[in-house]
Amino acid sequence: MAENKLGREIPEQYADVFGTFEGQFSRRHDYKRSSGKVTSVKPGESKLLSSIREAIEKSGLKDGMTISFHHHFREGDKVLNMVMEEIAAMGIKNLTLAPSSIANVHAPLIDHIKNGVITQITSSGLRDRLGAEISHGLMEKPVIIRSHGGRARAIEKDEIHIDVAFLGAPSADAYGNANGSHGKANCGSLGYAKVDAEFADKVVIITDNLVPYPNTPISIPQNQVDYVVVVDSIGDPDGIAKGATRITTNPKELLIAENANKVITASPYYKEGFSFQSGTGGSTLAVARFLQDSMRKDNIKASFALGGLTGHLCSMLEEGLIEKIIDTQCFDRSAIESMKKNEHHYEISASFYANPGNKGAAVNQLDVVVLSALEIDTNFNVNVMTGSDGVIRGASGGHSDASAGAKLSLVLTPLIRGRIPTIVEEVNTVITPGASIDVVVTEIGIAINPRRQDLMEAFRNLNVPQYTMEELKEKAYEVVGRPDPIVYEDRVVALIEYRDGSLIDVVRKVRD
Amino acid sequence: MAENKLGREIPEQYADVFGTFEGQFSRRHDYKRSSGKVTSVKPGESKLLSSIREAIEKSGLKDGMTISFHHHFREGDKVLNMVMEEIAAMGIKNLTLAPSSIANVHAPLIDHIKNGVITQITSSGLRDRLGAEISHGLMEKPVIIRSHGGRARAIEKDEIHIDVAFLGAPSADAYGNANGSHGKANCGSLGYAKVDAEFADKVVIITDNLVPYPNTPISIPQNQVDYVVVVDSIGDPDGIAKGATRITTNPKELLIAENANKVITASPYYKEGFSFQSGTGGSTLAVARFLQDSMRKDNIKASFALGGLTGHLCSMLEEGLIEKIIDTQCFDRSAIESMKKNEHHYEISASFYANPGNKGAAVNQLDVVVLSALEIDTNFNVNVMTGSDGVIRGASGGHSDASAGAKLSLVLTPLIRGRIPTIVEEVNTVITPGASIDVVVTEIGIAINPRRQDLMEAFRNLNVPQYTMEELKEKAYEVVGRPDPIVYEDRVVALIEYRDGSLIDVVRKVRD
Repeated sequence: MAENKLGREIPEQYADVFGTFEGQFSRRHDYKRSSGKVTSVKPGESKLLSSIREAIEKSGLKDGMTISFHHHFREGDKVLNMVMEEIAAMGIKNLTLAPSSIANVHAPLIDHIKNGVITQITSSGLRDRLGAEISHGLMEKPVIIRSHGGRARAIEKDEIHIDVAFLGAPSADAYGNANGSHGKANCGSLGYAKVDAEFADKVVIITDNLVPYPNTPISIPQNQVDYVVVVDSIGDPDGIAKGATRITTNPKELLIAENANKVITASPYYKEGFSFQSGTGGSTLAVARFLQDSMRKDNIKASFALGGLTGHLCSMLEEGLIEKIIDTQCFDRSAIESMKKNEHHYEISASFYANPGNKGAAVNQLDVVVLSALEIDTNFNVNVMTGSDGVIRGASGGHSDASAGAKLSLVLTPLIRGRIPTIVEEVNTVITPGASIDVVVTEIGIAINPRRQDLMEAFRNLNVPQYTMEELKEKAYEVVGRPDPIVYEDRVVALIEYRDGSLIDVVRKVRD
Repeated sequence: MAENKLGREIPEQYADVFGTFEGQFSRRHDYKRSSGKVTSVKPGESKLLSSIREAIEKSGLKDGMTISFHHHFREGDKVLNMVMEEIAAMGIKNLTLAPSSIANVHAPLIDHIKNGVITQITSSGLRDRLGAEISHGLMEKPVIIRSHGGRARAIEKDEIHIDVAFLGAPSADAYGNANGSHGKANCGSLGYAKVDAEFADKVVIITDNLVPYPNTPISIPQNQVDYVVVVDSIGDPDGIAKGATRITTNPKELLIAENANKVITASPYYKEGFSFQSGTGGSTLAVARFLQDSMRKDNIKASFALGGLTGHLCSMLEEGLIEKIIDTQCFDRSAIESMKKNEHHYEISASFYANPGNKGAAVNQLDVVVLSALEIDTNFNVNVMTGSDGVIRGASGGHSDASAGAKLSLVLTPLIRGRIPTIVEEVNTVITPGASIDVVVTEIGIAINPRRQDLMEAFRNLNVPQYTMEELKEKAYEVVGRPDPIVYEDRVVALIEYRDGSLIDVVRKVRD
């Protein structure tokens, strides 16, 4: 058993292959980029096929290959299930599934795993039913969890080589030019899909909205696309995005957000031209509203916001409080509309966003990021993957990417959730190392990472109570008691890759 | 001596390496894309360097490597000379120069060749002084002439591997995000540069307009850029683009254009949603004006225009006669302004435009292309490279690409220019094979390629006199006489690669 820098135990067989986590920037990436195969298309040849089945056949998909999908349609996605059903019906087996993430709606994967169609998975996350099944030992080979930036890195370094990418496109022409801005299943940015299209050997565009050539804007260009298939529906708009993401009215969440805003605006980074990223969770989303008020009052404009984007940030773009938005993923209808109409709301790929192995990701330019957590421990390590029962139900997402890149990383969390402490002695699963986290913000006050003496100095007179993580943990334990340890078996069901490719943790099978 | 399908003699030593031309679509391209090397950039690391020299040093440029530039600044370019001067001063030798093209302003290259700094060149074209010097034997190794699509193919297939690309950018941020739309030296599309940025090992952005992060629109993304250098001036706006390109008033050119428009509008391709490309030459540009009138009258709209773009086509976009423009290169100020402000004027890469080896180039979607020629022979082979004295002075450009892709390819040419016949028995140099050309249009009438019996039928009642190429040639020879044969020596000074990579011709040293 190897032990990584955080003291997490990694079985040798995996440590030997991936290496163990040594620190957030300890790996230097020097490599030749991966690349896809090309078969040229001559004038007069058509890429338009009549069915998913024909596309699978023409793609040359065979047992043992790797396939990918994007998760821009979230809970409204119909593409993954549709394609997997056809693949299963064709009797193809032993595939590696490498989507950018997996949603609840993809529970039919459970059967495809049981039937041997899929024998390996890499994903940002696993949701309820599939996550539970996998935590209970559904798959022989452990799932590899990768962050959004880590997945882009793995693809660019050929650690994931996609044989066939099946990419749902809300708008496409018959030659494959595709975007996510237009169409009945529009989802905004196709930032994750862009990476797959660039590096996969075969790329199949699946659309329910075939438009005249040339389709613009072009998120995925024709010269990366082999085939185009038209289907009735690629996604359910209600599942793809909610209306405008609502700001919470929960008083505790608002208190956390207000504290977070005090931290941000008192920090040395809050000045004309600063940049930030904030997420969708209750209090992380609310921070944007407090920040908006502060920026108006202080007459400060942000140079850019990065994301995962919500409509609220887009309204700040419209208002002129933010100069530019660069966007890998739209979270709500307002964000999708914003990307369609506002030229300063610009689509970027997941590699551009967060890949730690490339020539410079956007997260490296971030001043402030506001993140959430399922658990955070006294070493500031963050878990956004496994629940208090040890079962996989979350997603790595851009958590470790943005927090590594930003100059000031805040984790917002209530002290307890229900009867469960969120601030603990040791998290079940580490997704983001404590070295990436600067300040933890709760409803009762904050804890500054002792690594950041400069911030301790900067926040000396901050009008928010300050604690150590040990103190916050004790306060949580006082209310709900020390959590019972989870009983795991030895068997590893998921490997948690840090964004640099090393293993930061593993998830073990929970005892039935 | 090998002989290719057009009967052109290719010395074995070159035929063995490149293969000989066998027909416009005889090569099927199946390959794994090339890719560049990457050294990751961590948070806090800067790409901004203080000088061209520092960029050359940091890039690791060494004797024997390949460097590239783009030609979007045309006769206004200052980047190539600036970088070459520094490279020469540093004593680096034996480089291969692989720009997308070379202009008159690059005559200082002659000294760099004489001094052994550059010992090999591949380019779309060579202009006056350099072309003449090379035709007179300046270089030991023959120059390789490639079309715009052929260059993209060669780069994607790793036949050209760019070690360092030095890319002038009218607008860039310190992390390398670059576009050509903004800045004092703006040139519009960066379509050629996009290919270099994608596949080169090291990419240096050279700008005179550093803007705050993130610079948008993003033609070249930060994750393809290693270094950024700011200089006083990258280009002279007057040399980069003229005002609006003027329509000719020359009666002969107007007559040719009118004939061409009759051919286009009588063709089966002229209907709602058709597409076309037309160039910048006197009569080819004038065609757009006649076509504009016809489209208004007939209430026909084009789905897209492709190019090399002039302001005239952009005005047709504004008017609604053209739905979309997709653009690798802007030829005048109006086109540059159009790309900046009109979202339906969309930038594409040279590979997207014309690469015959990729998954489908835009030229494959063309209905009509209007081209010019220096010479065209009775087999419809076209020369746009060497003058009547056999000296290199032209550029391959997109000639062979667009004509191979389009359903109807017109070559517009006067019968004679000055005292020189343009329709001849055999062209000095073949750039585009006759199989790609459908109709030759002159001031006295047209000749239809006998290969296109369908067009002969379609144009049976066309109100334009019709001739054979033999007849047109005789009419030219009647006026100016049969041209004297050019006296060449055996030595090959340039290899003419067809877009598929095979040799369609060679250019030999002219006798001094």
